[in-house]
Formats: sequence, structure tokens, C-alpha cells
Amino acid sequence: MSALEFKNLDTLPAFAALKRLPRIELKKVLSAERVERFSIPMAGGLAFNYAARPVDDAVLDALGQLSREQQLPEKYRALLDGEIFNTGEGRKVLHHLVRGQLGRDVVEDGRNLRAFYVEQQRRIDAFAARVHAGRIVGSTGKPFATVVQIGIGGSDLGPRALYLALTTSAEARGELRLRARFISNVDPDDANETLRGVDLETALFILVSKSGTTQETLTNRQFVIEKMRAAKISGLKPERHMIAVTSETSPLAKSSEYLDSFYIDDYIGGRYSATSAVGGAVLTLAFGPDVFAEVLSGASEADRTALEPDARRNSSMMDALIGVYERNVLGLPTQAVLPYSQALSRFPAHLQQLDMESNGKHVNRDGKPISYQTGPVIFGEPGTNGQHSFYQLLHQGTDIVPLQFVGFRESQDDFDVSIDGSSSRTKLAANLAAQIVAFAIGKDDPNPNKSFAGNRGSSVIHGLQLTPKALGALLAHFENKVMFQGFLWNINSFDQEGVQLGKTLAGRILSGKGLDPVMAAYAKLLGIASPPPRG
Amino acid sequence: MSALEFKNLDTLPAFAALKRLPRIELKKVLSAERVERFSIPMAGGLAFNYAARPVDDAVLDALGQLSREQQLPEKYRALLDGEIFNTGEGRKVLHHLVRGQLGRDVVEDGRNLRAFYVEQQRRIDAFAARVHAGRIVGSTGKPFATVVQIGIGGSDLGPRALYLALTTSAEARGELRLRARFISNVDPDDANETLRGVDLETALFILVSKSGTTQETLTNRQFVIEKMRAAKISGLKPERHMIAVTSETSPLAKSSEYLDSFYIDDYIGGRYSATSAVGGAVLTLAFGPDVFAEVLSGASEADRTALEPDARRNSSMMDALIGVYERNVLGLPTQAVLPYSQALSRFPAHLQQLDMESNGKHVNRDGKPISYQTGPVIFGEPGTNGQHSFYQLLHQGTDIVPLQFVGFRESQDDFDVSIDGSSSRTKLAANLAAQIVAFAIGKDDPNPNKSFAGNRGSSVIHGLQLTPKALGALLAHFENKVMFQGFLWNINSFDQEGVQLGKTLAGRILSGKGLDPVMAAYAKLLGIASPPPRG
Repeated sequence: MSALEFKNLDTLPAFAALKRLPRIELKKVLSAERVERFSIPMAGGLAFNYAARPVDDAVLDALGQLSREQQLPEKYRALLDGEIFNTGEGRKVLHHLVRGQLGRDVVEDGRNLRAFYVEQQRRIDAFAARVHAGRIVGSTGKPFATVVQIGIGGSDLGPRALYLALTTSAEARGELRLRARFISNVDPDDANETLRGVDLETALFILVSKSGTTQETLTNRQFVIEKMRAAKISGLKPERHMIAVTSETSPLAKSSEYLDSFYIDDYIGGRYSATSAVGGAVLTLAFGPDVFAEVLSGASEADRTALEPDARRNSSMMDALIGVYERNVLGLPTQAVLPYSQALSRFPAHLQQLDMESNGKHVNRDGKPISYQTGPVIFGEPGTNGQHSFYQLLHQGTDIVPLQFVGFRESQDDFDVSIDGSSSRTKLAANLAAQIVAFAIGKDDPNPNKSFAGNRGSSVIHGLQLTPKALGALLAHFENKVMFQGFLWNINSFDQEGVQLGKTLAGRILSGKGLDPVMAAYAKLLGIASPPPRG
Repeated sequence: MSALEFKNLDTLPAFAALKRLPRIELKKVLSAERVERFSIPMAGGLAFNYAARPVDDAVLDALGQLSREQQLPEKYRALLDGEIFNTGEGRKVLHHLVRGQLGRDVVEDGRNLRAFYVEQQRRIDAFAARVHAGRIVGSTGKPFATVVQIGIGGSDLGPRALYLALTTSAEARGELRLRARFISNVDPDDANETLRGVDLETALFILVSKSGTTQETLTNRQFVIEKMRAAKISGLKPERHMIAVTSETSPLAKSSEYLDSFYIDDYIGGRYSATSAVGGAVLTLAFGPDVFAEVLSGASEADRTALEPDARRNSSMMDALIGVYERNVLGLPTQAVLPYSQALSRFPAHLQQLDMESNGKHVNRDGKPISYQTGPVIFGEPGTNGQHSFYQLLHQGTDIVPLQFVGFRESQDDFDVSIDGSSSRTKLAANLAAQIVAFAIGKDDPNPNKSFAGNRGSSVIHGLQLTPKALGALLAHFENKVMFQGFLWNINSFDQEGVQLGKTLAGRILSGKGLDPVMAAYAKLLGIASPPPRG
């Protein structure tokens, strides 16, 4: 392996070459042959089809050159082997390790970290088995029926998106073990509304905070405890309804206030933690250990395919490269994620965090300012809903929005109806196919208001069904895409210094100390007339 | 009133003047005095504070001039009076009329249209009263407990956002009459998952489709009917569990397949229909007529304040003007909507449709191409959740995203906890105040990775509590903002020709007729191997 070199994107010869290449006109080049050829098999039985992205062989060759100049495969291998890639915080990046072993053993202070992560999942499996068997029950003797995750950001969005993705299918098979609910916002209306639908005697709460100091999460923990007390149910003991997922050094670890604690560490970033104990606890309790093992297996297989050095055979690398081309050569500032799958209704919200928090950066990995654009704005809703909402702008607005579709041949639940000669699921697939073509090809019309310029690029990730394994593969595809884009931009995709200032200022407003006149004016505006002295 | 003239934005002297004015540096000008002064009272006890938007008095004066040159107040009055503003389709735009009378009577074919809309809501109130009193019950004799809206786009997003916004408070007061659920996607997993939580014997379905031909909605209607048949419940009759909201000329009107039908017409666009029978039926059934009347009252009051010709006293006009300044002078392509209120969790999804479908246009109102940008990409999630997700990019990304915050002093439910000397609702407000300041002022730091450039503008709509009246005012503020922006861009904000091509191509794929090789390739890719012949 050659020594790693970390260069800014705009210093690479291939990037200069890319900018010189002619732009392609998608509606002229899109063909059935291209649909056949511009396709990459993915893990979990999925495929990444980029026939309708605005690239041709010349651009793809230059992107391949870019991947080599920026040493994408070598950097990924080094990351897997435990090299420090979260540079500012001096941390390894080990979320791949929770679902497989692809590189060398990562050993620290005599501890094999893969063994540590695997041990946590084994402990979760054993705990869940006892809950499912009714050997661990609530404090009033009733079996647990609902698991409530208390967490925010990465401790909420990823696990919630995966839970929703797996629920319909589990319910259809009669295999949902515990239903799950989520409390995240510090707005008390979130906890109030969520708890209204939960029987406290049969609820098992999972407190998720790596540091054990997240303000929203600790506040909501106290909220739940006070709700339990206010319920005045004889024998109801909060500490027998709560487990923690945290780091071993956090104040939550090994506390008598929890039934049990499961651990992650600083090498698992929040937005990359869905396959760690952060997602593992709630998903194993909800669906059982086999389903979660399948998610891990799909993610692990995707991680392995991401090792492939040829971008034309590596879906996450190709997705990353084309994304950088769209962002930095074509100058497109946004991307829409459009799953034609109701089960993926909150997957775009997870990808929004994953991508924007990872790559919304203004300095390179060495902390030096850079002079090119980094991560785009990511947004999306499921199709066909979006077709009746914001697609108008995507089709006929004045800006071009790159599109990432996802679709499956089969639904999560078999019950379906046929009207006008087709089932609902066929209508869903037909709409997806139609949209890809409509965006790419457009339509001329003598009435300009009815004409479509086309040349609006998309790719589609498709497969037979959104199984747990396919879901794991889909998740890891995007994690690895974001990682490769971070390498391309030469940024640190694994810190989030941008969230600190707001926290600091909120603390000042709450304490009433160090307020300048502008902060005092806004505090007053929002009803914090005289901040209380620190208690 | 002067005669109306319709001119493109880039022909107006004030627009040229705006481009010549110096850009302001927000972090240098933001002051407590500005927070006091850059504030506009809104309907429903709300206020629009734009102290942190990137404008100064010189820019505001030029924007005021722009509002006069583009005749914003006159055009709004003409729209209220029933002039054709949906030019391509030759239709009036009358959603304001469903909640009040501000202009002249709008009479067509001898019918006073306000009387028509009011009559529909009176009929809904009477129907709901009979349901609430148990005088209309399900076909097996049980009182209705759940109302399920079947609709998509404007028949889904607005009503759903308003339902979620009002639920916590209604439940806290013990005044939720019927809970509501929503089915929208043609993906059968949506209906399957929603119906799993619904007792069919006590469910009242509302079929919402203005044309009566919306593919997704008719498919889901059939889905529900077949689910009811499959349930094999003796005496269960679908037609006694369904009402319709549609136009009088649609196939759904006055059909024996519905308990009753309530009407809208072509002058109420889908995305503007939340205050018509489209939102009225579900919200009146869920919360009772008084709550919905309050929503209408707030919207009507907001419509009245939008008549004010001075932009400095007209929140929706000011919001529209600054938005156009940000889009067309500062060149910013997106906007984030960030409500610090869990009750508004789906309000950004509604605004996404409202704004992007209305103003994502490439031709002017006369169908002529234009050479400036129109509507931006709109996205958002509630705070504080977003702070732990995509705010990293908003703070430190390479693009600037204009921000629209919303916040209230009181929650929907009184139950709250105090830890570290502050309640949850105070923490929520403190975070909002802190974010406004952090985005605007930023922070210098010797470590560039910990520095914040600031100058990221925002406004905040704030009030005491999200009451039904405040919610109506908030909704109408954005509807009117979008309308004023449409006037400024000289586009038709009331059609959606961009949704047609996808529908046409999906129809071809489903029929198997008129497929070109590219469409056939994508149909095959997505599992539609041999499209069935039309039945």
C-alpha cells in the first residue's frame, strides 16, 4: 500500500481534468443499453443504477482517476485498520467494526475492540431473550410490551428509521416482539404525546447518550421518571424500567438506576451508531436477535463491496464520485432522497443527518480553510407522496436537484388490491420508472408551461424487497458514500464542532451569566424574561 | 385603484436598485434595538421578528419600493375580488374566501361562492355533531372512534400537519373527539400499516379528491373496502363508514357509496385547501366545530393584516420580499423551516409542498420563459432535534441557508419537569434564542474548525402558545407569503403542470402502450417485466 497523502480536492489533476470535460446532455444519451450497463451490484441483493446520472464514460474515467489520486481505497483500508480519521478529536472511526472484521484487529490498551463491540451485542441478545421470555418483567410484574428509546440526533434518527423500515414486515409475519416508541425533543410536548400512548407498567425505556451528558436526553429521562411517579401506581419503580446505552466512562454506566447498561465508545460517531448498541438494543428488543443480525450482515457485506478499488464495481464509491462531480463541477447545491417505499418514510431524515452533519464542513481535515463547496443540503419524502408535493419544483423549477431514488419489487405486507388492471405495488413501481424517465428526458410542448426541459439526473437503488439484510446494505451504502465524499473533499466527516456554539450560548441564557444585549433581547422575546440564577 | 400591470421581476427599477445596494454584514448590525424595531405584529397574537435577516433600512426601503412597483397590495385585492389569477387554467383563486369576506362578493352563475363554502362547513359541523352525539354510528352499531383521511398531496399534508399541531393540546384538555389517521401513499404498506392500528367497526373514512380521479386515493379507497370485506365482520358495510370531500361534478359526489359528501371547487387549490372542507371535515370530526372555527378565525385575521400596503407592517409581505432578496440578489437557493415546537413536526412538510409546488416554476404567468430564479428548496425538522442533526451544515457548511424559526412561550401540555434550574420548555426557548444569535454572530476561534463565520440570517415567528387561532394565522402567513412571492416573480402560483408528465408516463407503463426502449428498460428493472394489457 502506498503511503497516504491528504490533498485538497482542487489540487488534484483529475479534478482539473473533470472541469474541462464537456457536460453531457442526459436526454440525448440515456438509452436502454445505458440502463443495462451503468449498474453496480450491491450487497443484500440490491443494485445501484446510475444510467440517469449526468455522466458518460469520459467523466467516469476521470472520476476513476480522481478516486486513485485521492487514494479512496487505501484511505478506507487505513480507517478500517484503526488509523485516526477523526483528526480534530484524535479518534479512530470504527463503526464498520461493529458489523464485521475487514481489516486488521484493532487493539487498544490490550483490548480487541471488535471483541468489545461483539460482546455488547451478545449481552443485548441475552437481555432481550430474557425480556421476550418474560424472565425480566416490569416492577409491577407485567411483561414488557413497549420499548421507548430516549435519545436525540444519532441516538434517535437512525434507530427510528430502521425500526419503521422493519415494522410492517414484522407485524405482517406476526413477529413484532415489542413495539417501539421514541422521545427525542426537549419540547415537553414530545414526551407528553408519546407517553400518552404508552402503558408505563409495561414500558421498558432505553436511555441512549454516549457521553451521558446530553441535555435533552437527561431532561427526558427525568420527565419519564416524574411521569411514573405522578401515575401513582403502586409498586412502579422507574429503575426497573430503564436500561442505558452509553460509554463505559459515562455517569450512566453501571448505575443502580438502570436494569442494565450496554456500551459503545468514542470511536462510534452518533450518526454512524445505528448498527452499534445504540440501534442494537431497541431493534433487538423489537424484532429479536436474528433480524438485527441480518441488518448487520447486510451492512458488513456492503462494507466488503466498498473495498473494491474499481469505482465501476463499487456502488458507494461511484455514488460518492458522481455526487462530488454534481456538487463541485456542475455546481448543484442540494440532493433529494426519494424512497418509493413507505417503510423508508424516515430514512431521508436519517440520511439528512448522516450526510449534512458529516460533510457540512468549511475546513479540511487539518483544520485549514478550503475554497470549494462541501456537503449539499439533503432532503426527501417517500414517493408517491412527493409527486403530489414538491416534485413540481424538481420538474419545472429554475434549479436542478440531483435525485436519489430507492425502490423494491415487493412490499413489506402481502395484502394488496388490483384496480384498473394493476396492483398497488405495480402502480408504485410504474410511478418510479415514469419519474426517472420524465426527469431525464422531459417533454417538448408548444405551451412552455407544459414543457419539461429534462436533463434532471437521478440514480435508483433497487431490489426485490426491503429485507433486514437489504436495509443493512442500504444503510452502509450511504455511510460509505459519505465517507468517500469526505475523503474526496479532504475533510473530517466524523466530528461536529458546528453544534458547540449553540450549546454554549443556550447554557449562558439558562444561567443568565455572560449575556450580551442581543442575547438578552432574544431571551426576552421568547419569554425568558429574567433568567433564573444557576441552581 | 390603479390598473394592474404584470411585469417580470428583472424589469423593475427597484430590483435593479436592490442589486446595487451594499450587502450588510449581519453580525455587525444586529443589536437589541434592531430586535425591538424589526418586528411586525401578526394575527393570532403572533409576531414576525426579522432583526436577524440580512437587510437594513436601505434594503427595506428598496423592498418597499419593489412592493409598490409590483403592485402587491392591489394584486392581492384583485385576487380576493375573484379576478383570474390561476392564468393557465383560467381559474379564480378563492381559498381566502373559505375563512372570511375581505373583498367584493364573488358571484358565479348566480351563486355567491362564499355562501357555498360556508354552507359546506355548516353541513360538516352538523354531520360531526351527529357523529359526536352517537346519532351516526358504524354499520355494526358502534360509535365512531377514529377518522381516517384518504388523500394525497394537499389532501394529506396540510390536514395532517394541522391535526398533529392540535392533538397534544386537545388530549391534555380531554377534548379529542376522534383520533385521526392518514393514508396517502399508493405503496400498500402505507394502508396496511395504518389500518393495523384501526378498529374497522369504529372507523370513519374520509375520501378526499377534488377531481374524484386521483389514482392513489381511489386505489386506497378500494384497499380499505377490500380490507373490510377480508375482515369478515358480520354486518360491516363500507359505504356506511365513508364520506367524501370532492367537487360537485366529480364521480364521488352524491354517490350511494358514501354516508355523505362535502364540496369544494376548482378555485381551492389542493395545497391551499387546509381551511376548506378538505381540512374542515377531518379537523371538525377530530376536535369539534369550535376548534376549527378558531383556526379559520386566525387565518382570516392573517388575511386581513396581509392587506396592509406598508410592508413594514405586513408580515407575509415582508417575509416574501426578504425571501426574494435572499433568492435573487444574494443568490441563496434553499430555506430551512425550523419550528421549536414538536406539535409542528409535520408543518415543514406542508410548507414544502405549499412553497415548492406553488413557486417552483420556469415560466411567468403568461407562459413566457423567465431569466431569474423562482422558488427555493424548502426543508426542515423541529428543533431541538435538528440541532443534533443537520445544523452542523447550517453553521459551518460552505453554503448559507436562510432560516425561518417558529417558537412559543408555552407548551401544548402543562406537564413539565425542572432540572438544573429550568423547565423543559425554558430549555427549548433558550436553545432557540441561542441558535438565532449563534447563526447571526458566529464566533472567532484560533482553531478554524471551532470558528463560526456568522452572518447566517434568520427570522422568528413567536407567540405565547400554539392555539388553534395562532395555528390558523401561521398557516395563512405562509400561504400569503407564497402568494406575494408569486406576484414578485410574476408567475402563476396556483397551477402545477409539472406533475403531469410523470402521471402520463406511469399510465403508459401500466397499460404497456407507447413504451419507448428507455421506459421499457426501467419498467423491467423495477419488476414490471411484461406490463399487463389494459383490463
